[in-house]
Amino acid sequence: MRRMFKALAPMLAVILPLSLPLSALLPLPALAGQGAPGAQAAPGVVEDGYDLWLRYRPLGKAARVQVRPVASAIVAAGTGTADGGSIAAPAGTPLQAAVAELQRGLGGLLGKAPPLAAAVQDGAVVLATPASMPALSGMGLQLEPLGQEGYLLRSTRLQGRKVTLIAANSDIGLLYGAFALLRKIGTGAEAPAGLAGLGALDERSAPKLQLRVLNHWDNLDRTVERGYAGESIWNWWALPEVRDRRYVDYARANASLGINGTVLNNVNSKPDILTAPWIAKAAAVADTLRPYGIKVYLSARFSTPLELGDTKTADPLDPAVAAWWKAKADEIYKAIPDFGGFLVKANSEGQPGPQDYKRSHADGANMLAKAVAPHKGIVMWRAFVYAHEKPDDRAKQAYDEFKPLDGTFDANVLVQVKNGAIDFQPREPAHPLFGAMPKTPLMMEFQITKEYLGYATHLAYLGTMYQETLATDMHTGTGGKGGSATVAQILEAGAEQGKSRLTGIAGVANIGSERNWSGSHFDQANWYAFGRLAWNPQAQAGALAREWAAQTFSSDPAVVTQVADLMMMSREAVVNYMTPLGLHHLMGTGHHHGPAPWVANLERPDWNPVYYHRADQGGIGFDRTASGSNAVAQYAPDLARQYADPRTTPESMLLWFHHLPWDYKMASGRKLWDELLARYDSGVAQADQMRQRWARLKPVIDARRHEDVAVLLDKQYQEAVWWRDASVAYFQSVSGLPLPAGVKAPGRPLDYYKSLKFPYAPGRG
Amino acid sequence: MRRMFKALAPMLAVILPLSLPLSALLPLPALAGQGAPGAQAAPGVVEDGYDLWLRYRPLGKAARVQVRPVASAIVAAGTGTADGGSIAAPAGTPLQAAVAELQRGLGGLLGKAPPLAAAVQDGAVVLATPASMPALSGMGLQLEPLGQEGYLLRSTRLQGRKVTLIAANSDIGLLYGAFALLRKIGTGAEAPAGLAGLGALDERSAPKLQLRVLNHWDNLDRTVERGYAGESIWNWWALPEVRDRRYVDYARANASLGINGTVLNNVNSKPDILTAPWIAKAAAVADTLRPYGIKVYLSARFSTPLELGDTKTADPLDPAVAAWWKAKADEIYKAIPDFGGFLVKANSEGQPGPQDYKRSHADGANMLAKAVAPHKGIVMWRAFVYAHEKPDDRAKQAYDEFKPLDGTFDANVLVQVKNGAIDFQPREPAHPLFGAMPKTPLMMEFQITKEYLGYATHLAYLGTMYQETLATDMHTGTGGKGGSATVAQILEAGAEQGKSRLTGIAGVANIGSERNWSGSHFDQANWYAFGRLAWNPQAQAGALAREWAAQTFSSDPAVVTQVADLMMMSREAVVNYMTPLGLHHLMGTGHHHGPAPWVANLERPDWNPVYYHRADQGGIGFDRTASGSNAVAQYAPDLARQYADPRTTPESMLLWFHHLPWDYKMASGRKLWDELLARYDSGVAQADQMRQRWARLKPVIDARRHEDVAVLLDKQYQEAVWWRDASVAYFQSVSGLPLPAGVKAPGRPLDYYKSLKFPYAPGRG
Repeated sequence: MRRMFKALAPMLAVILPLSLPLSALLPLPALAGQGAPGAQAAPGVVEDGYDLWLRYRPLGKAARVQVRPVASAIVAAGTGTADGGSIAAPAGTPLQAAVAELQRGLGGLLGKAPPLAAAVQDGAVVLATPASMPALSGMGLQLEPLGQEGYLLRSTRLQGRKVTLIAANSDIGLLYGAFALLRKIGTGAEAPAGLAGLGALDERSAPKLQLRVLNHWDNLDRTVERGYAGESIWNWWALPEVRDRRYVDYARANASLGINGTVLNNVNSKPDILTAPWIAKAAAVADTLRPYGIKVYLSARFSTPLELGDTKTADPLDPAVAAWWKAKADEIYKAIPDFGGFLVKANSEGQPGPQDYKRSHADGANMLAKAVAPHKGIVMWRAFVYAHEKPDDRAKQAYDEFKPLDGTFDANVLVQVKNGAIDFQPREPAHPLFGAMPKTPLMMEFQITKEYLGYATHLAYLGTMYQETLATDMHTGTGGKGGSATVAQILEAGAEQGKSRLTGIAGVANIGSERNWSGSHFDQANWYAFGRLAWNPQAQAGALAREWAAQTFSSDPAVVTQVADLMMMSREAVVNYMTPLGLHHLMGTGHHHGPAPWVANLERPDWNPVYYHRADQGGIGFDRTASGSNAVAQYAPDLARQYADPRTTPESMLLWFHHLPWDYKMASGRKLWDELLARYDSGVAQADQMRQRWARLKPVIDARRHEDVAVLLDKQYQEAVWWRDASVAYFQSVSGLPLPAGVKAPGRPLDYYKSLKFPYAPGRG
Repeated sequence: MRRMFKALAPMLAVILPLSLPLSALLPLPALAGQGAPGAQAAPGVVEDGYDLWLRYRPLGKAARVQVRPVASAIVAAGTGTADGGSIAAPAGTPLQAAVAELQRGLGGLLGKAPPLAAAVQDGAVVLATPASMPALSGMGLQLEPLGQEGYLLRSTRLQGRKVTLIAANSDIGLLYGAFALLRKIGTGAEAPAGLAGLGALDERSAPKLQLRVLNHWDNLDRTVERGYAGESIWNWWALPEVRDRRYVDYARANASLGINGTVLNNVNSKPDILTAPWIAKAAAVADTLRPYGIKVYLSARFSTPLELGDTKTADPLDPAVAAWWKAKADEIYKAIPDFGGFLVKANSEGQPGPQDYKRSHADGANMLAKAVAPHKGIVMWRAFVYAHEKPDDRAKQAYDEFKPLDGTFDANVLVQVKNGAIDFQPREPAHPLFGAMPKTPLMMEFQITKEYLGYATHLAYLGTMYQETLATDMHTGTGGKGGSATVAQILEAGAEQGKSRLTGIAGVANIGSERNWSGSHFDQANWYAFGRLAWNPQAQAGALAREWAAQTFSSDPAVVTQVADLMMMSREAVVNYMTPLGLHHLMGTGHHHGPAPWVANLERPDWNPVYYHRADQGGIGFDRTASGSNAVAQYAPDLARQYADPRTTPESMLLWFHHLPWDYKMASGRKLWDELLARYDSGVAQADQMRQRWARLKPVIDARRHEDVAVLLDKQYQEAVWWRDASVAYFQSVSGLPLPAGVKAPGRPLDYYKSLKFPYAPGRG
């Protein structure tokens, strides 16, 4: 095993910070039987994952001593006198939410909630805006650049008192600032002298993207498409009368990251969601989320007026249709005055759309945009489309359809583009549309739920995946002139030449009704990383992993390092045992669980794994160069050149762009066939290493969550072996090549793997 | 309103113990907004319902003083010395479960868990069987009649020490005894001097039915047919590797009631459940439940071998089929040595069965019975059948099909009969099969989930409904000779003339993945009441309501009385606003939510509400006397005579048996039309009263659960009005009669109620 890792350098060296030498790994201790009676509930708080990263468990004594002097009271400027311990901040406002969170958080961290105080005093945490405390304006704080959502944390003097100031231009900014202060304290112990800096705070932060939105693929019957965390968090049946308390905790968690919007229902939408009973349900959710700065959006089915029988067509240029949507928007805004707008999946995978009437995506989007524009609403129009006709390369279609429309969208439309051109695979090159539509604001669509990365079972920290895309240099330069421009910069810049000033990012949520929210403890980290990257797309995945681990498990730096290391290696492990070297779309049909590279019998060619890997006796991979589909030409020239040559294409994406002979010589000096096998083996080894590393953490992680994770890591290892064995068995059957010495034969014959069926897999929603 | 209640005497006087005069009711206080931020978690334990009736919250000081001297240590006889605080009872055994529960329970109630002790000492709780403490045999305890599941609680002297003895013939008996002691302490404070008696205990209890079984209608994709409490508790996808901790708490809750079996999957079954991967999943559940005395059963699809392609037919008399089932049983018992057996729904509602091959239900049941007999397994064969052909009266069919088969079933077969002859309606007369098959053990099937009684939204305590059926005198006498014989007695007697000694009862579970298990706090009471009645079918619903309320909310006798009063009136309220006077099957199609008495267009006549109420200008009701379907003749002569005459038929079942003119004169002196309207109005008034009574309890119930329930009671009231209004509007449209003075017209025209659709209602699983 050691030899293999050596051979995979330098890439693996980056992703496997082997601070723990393999030789030092202890054997896995036997897991305590879960079924055994007698397991007593831990005294006090049970770590069942419900509290997410907002656990606020008591700090150690030394840390408390550092924090108490700078957080000994809470003052919310402009709320008048404190009254019997309860502050006079208006109920249901962001300010009240901020104060409540500080009390809850500091109360937990310090063992006792700081009192609310009417007057500024030494050691107080003071929340203030220029409106609530006019004196702020004269302090040279430079609040203006923070905008309506940014915040400032500063140790300063107010009215002669030494305070911890949270300042912002709006109460939402104060709420974000309150969460930032709590995060700082909660994680502080892990950074060198982290808490020592609390007395000399001077930080400012503002979101780099305006729209930071979750997309729930939640159906009205409470199933969730690609959901692996129980039912939908939205108990539609009980709404609007019954508002689950989880909605508030959901809002707190999102606000703690800066997420400021949520699309409640699946992009595969139903007309019902826009009828009165459902608008009332959505309004109840909106009321609950509003104090946390989160706007509600809905996925609209393009044919809604037609299907409800209100119009005779859904043609976007038909005046009756436009009038219907205008009236519908008015109706929605009456119930939800700050309704965000619509998300639309049109003319994609069977969904209706403007093309049904020979209209363009822009025609459809602009018609809806005009309906919500008077209310300051927006339309997020998805670029995930592929034609019914047999395409030359599915990866090219979104670009082919949308690039020509650049400049034709209304100012309140964003085009929402998946991170890659296929569909949320474990690894995809950045979507060629990024940088290709300078007159149109593009909104990133990441998938947080792990449809293709092992459901909630596998530990795969996606922070690295998000960062990989966001940091990709599209070489489109500012204004598309060919200079350096990362995807993050492109998102932040928005439509440089267009009339729209909108920017945004969306994540397909992994949130459900399960107690731990995401189906596994570690999947919470993907929600976290998405949210933090939405705030700052140039944040570092490694730093976010440490932040999350410190708040979620322990702020002990040694624990944080080990947990973060595990996270940082995890996604690459999944890529290795599922789709190494740029392979993609090799999963089982429909449910997308497990390997099925042999599938070749589906109706559309581009639904079949064989369409994507094109393996035969001669070689493997999808030729997307000029000799093939020429998808590389969709990228800016610098990037296209790089991807056009296998020698300059990163090996991690090699077979995405190239069909190569089995004896193609890799950078390692090995033949492609040998390298492919080595990657599969390394994935399995990494999965094994992950469970062993976790086992070593048993003494420092609470028993319950440690066991929860250990059981899943065991299952992940078994499934990694399955992926590797089934894939090797299949590719050997087409390559006809022998396994090199030392490479283990698959555990079962190929037919066994082909026979496996999963008719009851979750997430088919 | 007061006048109306007076008019409904005497029935209402029984069901409305108006200890609270209406004039004393306070107005409903405004509910705290759930969406408001700032709601702090209560310090310590949050009452979210997860702990069910096993909350074990600290007793008051006076109570603790009474309990401590009789529970100051725990001694498990035969386990050797205590070792560092942990007892040597073998892990994963019922004895360990009993000790752990006593430690958990007494620890919670007393604030500190009594230590485990190796030697008998004064004040100890001693768990002992004749096997673990041979001295028991000489004490004249008369343990033998307790059987393998009964227990004895006695304050006595052992080895010269004054102890609280829990004695039984088996460790399962000890576990039941431990729960009984904890229940006694937990509820004791509510009975006069309840805890004072702890020092002079002398109680013995043994179950009156052998098989006390939950039926989960849970599908393999984790949906639940008629489930209103989230997804299935069985996370099939994650099993067998991941065993949810809930399974242990599920086992504890069931064991606390004496439930000793659970059918894991829906009676509408799939072949997959009997394949190797699913047997492994069931085995993992069985391993978890085993220490709690709970056996696992599976619902078997009759055509399984045929559908799996292993046989060419599913004909029960085909030797290959019988051999397949025998081999399958062997395979299951290898994985689950104490597997309980099969539950089968055959030739009913489209399910396959022996009649597909011109064989009888007995042919089918006996073939399966022979497969499991070598392993001491059983078959529970459902009598819920109705033919595909148009029947003269669906209510007659189970009797017509099964009575002729009496005496033809193997000794390890029970016939499982629903409480009534239609389908779990809010009120049905007892099923005519009870007492009609003296050579066959009949197993009662109650529905705990509220398919027809308002889902989990409506508060409807079903203890009264269960008791009503169990206490019904079928007049079949012992051995069917015509004397008095209640349904309870018939169940307890089993097959008096047959070869089988089996007895049993089943309840269709209302348990799901929701935090509070049952979808609402009060629905937990139905699980509780079912379990306690399964142990003793002659228990009283009122006493069980008090028991449950004391453990679930507060043992303060005043609170217990008010909560129990609410419960005791609740089911009759539902009957009144849904299906008064013996009406039945008036609900919406498919989802069974809300009123739809007008439905007349379904494929089968007996799927239509109009088939059941037969209302027209002349009158209303189903004539089941000799002039009609003559279903009354299926009852024993004494009962048949009573039901044949409207004057001797209880008014609560009047229209079940009789078609009567609108001006039929009721006992109240009113005309039937007026009486019907009055019942609907009383149902609405009762729903209103329920929410007002609950509002008054606000100061004495924890805030969270009080609000949870208050919101639902509000919704229940709104839906009661809807049921009443829609029903009145419809029946007026067919009767053509005016509403009497003082009766309020429905709020909307009939067409409005007809237009309501619920395509996303839960429970369609």
